[in-house]
Amino acid sequence: MIQSRLLRILLLFTSTLTLAQTKPRARDLGVPFDGNPGPNNAITDVKGVEVGHTTLISGSGKLKVGEGPVRTGVTAILPRGKGSTDAVFGGWFTLNGNGEMTGTTWVEDSGFIDGPIMITNTHSVGVVRDAVIAWKVKRGKPDMEGYWWSLPVVAETWDGYLNDINGFHVKPEHVFNALDSARSGPVEEGNVGGGTGMICNEFKGGIGTASRVLSAKEGGYTVGVLVQCNYGEREQLRIAGVPVGREIPEHTVWKNDTGSIIIVVATDAPLIPTQLKRVARRASLALGRLGSYSGDGSGDIFIAFSTGNANAVSPKSVRELKMLPNDDINPVFLATVQATEEAIVNAMVAAETMTGINDHMVIALPHDRLREVLKKYNRLAR
Amino acid sequence: MIQSRLLRILLLFTSTLTLAQTKPRARDLGVPFDGNPGPNNAITDVKGVEVGHTTLISGSGKLKVGEGPVRTGVTAILPRGKGSTDAVFGGWFTLNGNGEMTGTTWVEDSGFIDGPIMITNTHSVGVVRDAVIAWKVKRGKPDMEGYWWSLPVVAETWDGYLNDINGFHVKPEHVFNALDSARSGPVEEGNVGGGTGMICNEFKGGIGTASRVLSAKEGGYTVGVLVQCNYGEREQLRIAGVPVGREIPEHTVWKNDTGSIIIVVATDAPLIPTQLKRVARRASLALGRLGSYSGDGSGDIFIAFSTGNANAVSPKSVRELKMLPNDDINPVFLATVQATEEAIVNAMVAAETMTGINDHMVIALPHDRLREVLKKYNRLAR
Amino acid sequence: MIQSRLLRILLLFTSTLTLAQTKPRARDLGVPFDGNPGPNNAITDVKGVEVGHTTLISGSGKLKVGEGPVRTGVTAILPRGKGSTDAVFGGWFTLNGNGEMTGTTWVEDSGFIDGPIMITNTHSVGVVRDAVIAWKVKRGKPDMEGYWWSLPVVAETWDGYLNDINGFHVKPEHVFNALDSARSGPVEEGNVGGGTGMICNEFKGGIGTASRVLSAKEGGYTVGVLVQCNYGEREQLRIAGVPVGREIPEHTVWKNDTGSIIIVVATDAPLIPTQLKRVARRASLALGRLGSYSGDGSGDIFIAFSTGNANAVSPKSVRELKMLPNDDINPVFLATVQATEEAIVNAMVAAETMTGINDHMVIALPHDRLREVLKKYNRLAR
Amino acid sequence: MIQSRLLRILLLFTSTLTLAQTKPRARDLGVPFDGNPGPNNAITDVKGVEVGHTTLISGSGKLKVGEGPVRTGVTAILPRGKGSTDAVFGGWFTLNGNGEMTGTTWVEDSGFIDGPIMITNTHSVGVVRDAVIAWKVKRGKPDMEGYWWSLPVVAETWDGYLNDINGFHVKPEHVFNALDSARSGPVEEGNVGGGTGMICNEFKGGIGTASRVLSAKEGGYTVGVLVQCNYGEREQLRIAGVPVGREIPEHTVWKNDTGSIIIVVATDAPLIPTQLKRVARRASLALGRLGSYSGDGSGDIFIAFSTGNANAVSPKSVRELKMLPNDDINPVFLATVQATEEAIVNAMVAAETMTGINDHMVIALPHDRLREVLKKYNRLAR
Repeated sequence: MIQSRLLRILLLFTSTLTLAQTKPRARDLGVPFDGNPGPNNAITDVKGVEVGHTTLISGSGKLKVGEGPVRTGVTAILPRGKGSTDAVFGGWFTLNGNGEMTGTTWVEDSGFIDGPIMITNTHSVGVVRDAVIAWKVKRGKPDMEGYWWSLPVVAETWDGYLNDINGFHVKPEHVFNALDSARSGPVEEGNVGGGTGMICNEFKGGIGTASRVLSAKEGGYTVGVLVQCNYGEREQLRIAGVPVGREIPEHTVWKNDTGSIIIVVATDAPLIPTQLKRVARRASLALGRLGSYSGDGSGDIFIAFSTGNANAVSPKSVRELKMLPNDDINPVFLATVQATEEAIVNAMVAAETMTGINDHMVIALPHDRLREVLKKYNRLAR
Repeated sequence: MIQSRLLRILLLFTSTLTLAQTKPRARDLGVPFDGNPGPNNAITDVKGVEVGHTTLISGSGKLKVGEGPVRTGVTAILPRGKGSTDAVFGGWFTLNGNGEMTGTTWVEDSGFIDGPIMITNTHSVGVVRDAVIAWKVKRGKPDMEGYWWSLPVVAETWDGYLNDINGFHVKPEHVFNALDSARSGPVEEGNVGGGTGMICNEFKGGIGTASRVLSAKEGGYTVGVLVQCNYGEREQLRIAGVPVGREIPEHTVWKNDTGSIIIVVATDAPLIPTQLKRVARRASLALGRLGSYSGDGSGDIFIAFSTGNANAVSPKSVRELKMLPNDDINPVFLATVQATEEAIVNAMVAAETMTGINDHMVIALPHDRLREVLKKYNRLAR
Repeated sequence: MIQSRLLRILLLFTSTLTLAQTKPRARDLGVPFDGNPGPNNAITDVKGVEVGHTTLISGSGKLKVGEGPVRTGVTAILPRGKGSTDAVFGGWFTLNGNGEMTGTTWVEDSGFIDGPIMITNTHSVGVVRDAVIAWKVKRGKPDMEGYWWSLPVVAETWDGYLNDINGFHVKPEHVFNALDSARSGPVEEGNVGGGTGMICNEFKGGIGTASRVLSAKEGGYTVGVLVQCNYGEREQLRIAGVPVGREIPEHTVWKNDTGSIIIVVATDAPLIPTQLKRVARRASLALGRLGSYSGDGSGDIFIAFSTGNANAVSPKSVRELKMLPNDDINPVFLATVQATEEAIVNAMVAAETMTGINDHMVIALPHDRLREVLKKYNRLAR
Repeated sequence: MIQSRLLRILLLFTSTLTLAQTKPRARDLGVPFDGNPGPNNAITDVKGVEVGHTTLISGSGKLKVGEGPVRTGVTAILPRGKGSTDAVFGGWFTLNGNGEMTGTTWVEDSGFIDGPIMITNTHSVGVVRDAVIAWKVKRGKPDMEGYWWSLPVVAETWDGYLNDINGFHVKPEHVFNALDSARSGPVEEGNVGGGTGMICNEFKGGIGTASRVLSAKEGGYTVGVLVQCNYGEREQLRIAGVPVGREIPEHTVWKNDTGSIIIVVATDAPLIPTQLKRVARRASLALGRLGSYSGDGSGDIFIAFSTGNANAVSPKSVRELKMLPNDDINPVFLATVQATEEAIVNAMVAAETMTGINDHMVIALPHDRLREVLKKYNRLAR
């Protein structure tokens, strides 16, 4: 019965890439940002990184738990793409811990992220986690001794204001779809994947992404960021230092910082785990730029990885690694702050007004108003 | 189809309590332990704590993924029992991180454990996590504003040597059963619940428990421990300081410390979260006593809670707390080490020889041999 | 010989309080800040907190190690004032670890700060630490068993661009003076105490402070912040969201984020250590607002304490505590971000142009230029 | 005056090496240990590591603060020897935090230990810290831009039961002497260096060391450990699993675990910082073997380093590193536990009965009694 209802849910595959490319992004609207973005201004500018979304939108009107309305989904980030079973060095950080990111105990101790990074709603972390294992079992093979286990990285933010979150609408097939459809190139933003029902600074939020390319002198590395943006209160929102939240006070949702944000930082700079923890921590500074005080209800959890050392996880012989010296790491730190800042604004710019359960409505950040406010404070680019 | 097969799996409810009480425990065999145990020598000696198991055992012979053989289960620890929705102060620690304990990011930051602590196999953490939410949704109610979310604590160890772990045999109803059947009083040990298919120092392992009661001068508090014991290599095993592993070298399973151990420490001493982190860390010292070096493949993750401050989590007014001074905490530390040591030995003593997938067999710690070895080293307690 | 030279160093006692009160502070210049400051807009607005400075300025011209020029000092923050030997609950956080704060291992594990918090230059942490012990020995008494030891909290930033840091000019008597002269009321800012030779965003930096008072509905608590500000690169500096650093590009000092910042947060809100760690972490968000990316060379270390639970450290009987619920903590978080932001700008506004070793000169943030830039971006208050 | 008194203090230089070599060590007495020690069974078996002690013993009878009796000192461990300014990868861990180890904030974040590791008494950490900087300033040179700063690693345990700790008898010249006299080869143990006045399990404690050499198949690496041993209560002491403390109950000192232990682990295995943190954590398991419960008053702080990657700290180009895979790290973990266990017992075996302030006497572990007890429990080797 549950199954039959689920079949009626529209799987919005990532077929709208053209749209994604033509929608204006934050910098198209004249929001000023520092640093040089990569070709897609997306996490996928880091070579090898693939992103896939499964978006679940169905029903409207009054909430019937288990039936909908449904406004949720799953996003998959594959550090080396579907074709690879190689791990990456990783590190993570919690700015405020009212959230979940599974798998981090082993990330912390091993220094590796082995498999995809998944983002979904709070109450679907479990199904996504086990489905990642099932997906790996189907595709992988046990190690030489016939043993294996898996500790997937799955994070979440809460979409229960718009979505029937206690209906548990995310199913294993949605996870498989997000993984199997992951690709490089442009990344859809806004009301997609895990970000479908999310709210950011009391505007409609969701998925956002951005990237930075360092100068040749700095090593020429790329830093890419993807966020699932569900944090913040309007009152505090600053964009480019401008008090945008106070200038656009209409249609607020609540009076507290009850949301969350998951931030994924990718780079091809050859960083070791100790350094990646430091990179993850820098995402905090981007939230600071945007006015957040990281409220008690927020799950502000960040994870960073480097694609720079292939086969570092392999046993049975000493590994040869490369490491960017700490003394040369500042451009990566700065790029992380810049790309995170832009990814968050991109999420709000891309998201569209959504009505969910019980006709709850969350408005999109109005583009024209944003431009007006930036102009008022002499911060509109060009 | 999967469902129909599952229906054939025998749900071993906790109807064998009488047996549990009559089986000898470690101290009955003459293993010497320090300190004074509580009436049940179990985690349930801490008032309010309830434990429930669902044990899944079915099939035999060659592994067919999804069909069995099945040797797994779920164990639920409810800090204040089923009747309470109040949280407890908590803290956690990782000795070696090759494992999962969900919910800990919020335990760390909030200082609270809100809900049950669940233990299962590695590949069933997700289903258990989401099922705990479903169980809470069914029983609980949203907060005043109609919002809620949940970040359950679910831990695991790997039972894939005996169990069809990639068959994902744990289902939501098994989780509900473990929760609903939780009770105070004696706790079944050995091949039950999450511990069903576990291996400890290359003997059959599983669930073990023990407790200590402090003297009146020390405050009269109780410390209870429950372990899901799946760690260790035979060669290193010491019991009561005696090299039991080397003296009983037969039927070893592998040549590595690839297992894991989850340790849950409960107390009614009024400890705040900072102190509970320290208590959790002490479990390491019990592993040291037993000879462990906490191998790379081990998920040695410990969590401690105190039932001592009711309603500490409630908002809207300043809370009144009690705190045992740091200067008076040593008896709690020592009791934690002692009860953990005994709980681990209890797990090995209670577990019975098991044959699982592909006719893999793991022998029980032979009781008579254990007594002989203790005697040889002049350590057999009267 | 060393002693005789030291006698020639001018001890600038805290006799310039009148001056401190008449100098304009950041908000006097029209920098817009949110929230309501306390009567002194200083950390001393938290009842009981006392601050003392010893400022060492002598010599000019070429550096002769051991002889000068000297531009350094010591700042003491006494959480409960000189008259108390009671500890406070505390927590700390490192945003970037290229610095020192002694005593934190025990702060982390005990949850207490027992004694003053001292700030000095990098190479004088040791002398200050031992001198704090000597000061306590002189004033205190051993515990009942005749034993005692002390693990003082001493932090630092590096002033070697202006100061003969390898001359080790801070002596025990300077530490005693800072402690003995500590008082409540207005706090001197800028080139004083530990902040004497510090540089902030390539303007002259030093000591800054600010406070916030919560509304009665929020509990009426006070949050006070004191910073020793030595971090940042000009290029990144934003004040009130305005790119002040780029608008005032003259007289930069270096091209890297090589400095550091020590941030001390005080509150009378009854917070337990777990909560104070979270408060300390919020200081990061203020740095984000001001444009920092927390460079590799930076020691960005924050410590927070609460005066709210007296006698919590006493042994021999269970303590009665009060705790602000996590659900009500957001105003404290926000106040921390706001007061930290203002304290940093206050440090730059108060500091005056200084010439140090080898005629290195660091300019003060020009007040008129700051006003112009704020006006250009429509952010000048009033 | 203070100076003149100090001149009368006998500097016990490391001229007693012959003695050190002829005194029996724990394994000479028949204490059974696992694993294969290196040629000196000392931390100096790790190539490049040098150790130096300054031992301060003078006076007797009643304590006059500032005059004595003096029973203290400094121990220096130089990871790459005096001839090198290269850093090593490092990691640290706190089992119980009632102690100090300066410099660890930067060890944690940078992954490097840059300079010597020093151990002294609790109230001399400061003087030792600043003296290390002075020593480096004298020998080193600033970086290319003329800037430098230093964050030395200095740890401590408390010797105030035997030593006039508030007399601050450790002076910079004692630090220089420990550094300048550091050498490879045999390491003096017992009442020397920082360990001079220390107490371990209520026997006389102090410095102890041991090492393990892995098999060629395991990589042939060496793991060396040095401890400054001041922890534990007699009642809990187990050696080789035997309850030695209860069997030798005479002349106990106090009734609490108020001491501390600093443990330094060295290896030439090419480990990265993430791995070295895990190695440091393993020292806990050795304390477990010996019966410790890590009391509230204990500063049980451990630090590990690897000499395996030279020049890893150098800036300006990407570094080439080697890393032992996590899957191959177990022998290093086990060797760490074994060598730590032996180093602690070596400290007690080497230390001699000492009388200090106010005629406080602490007895040495009686060698013959130890052998008798081991024999009673059938654990005497050979």
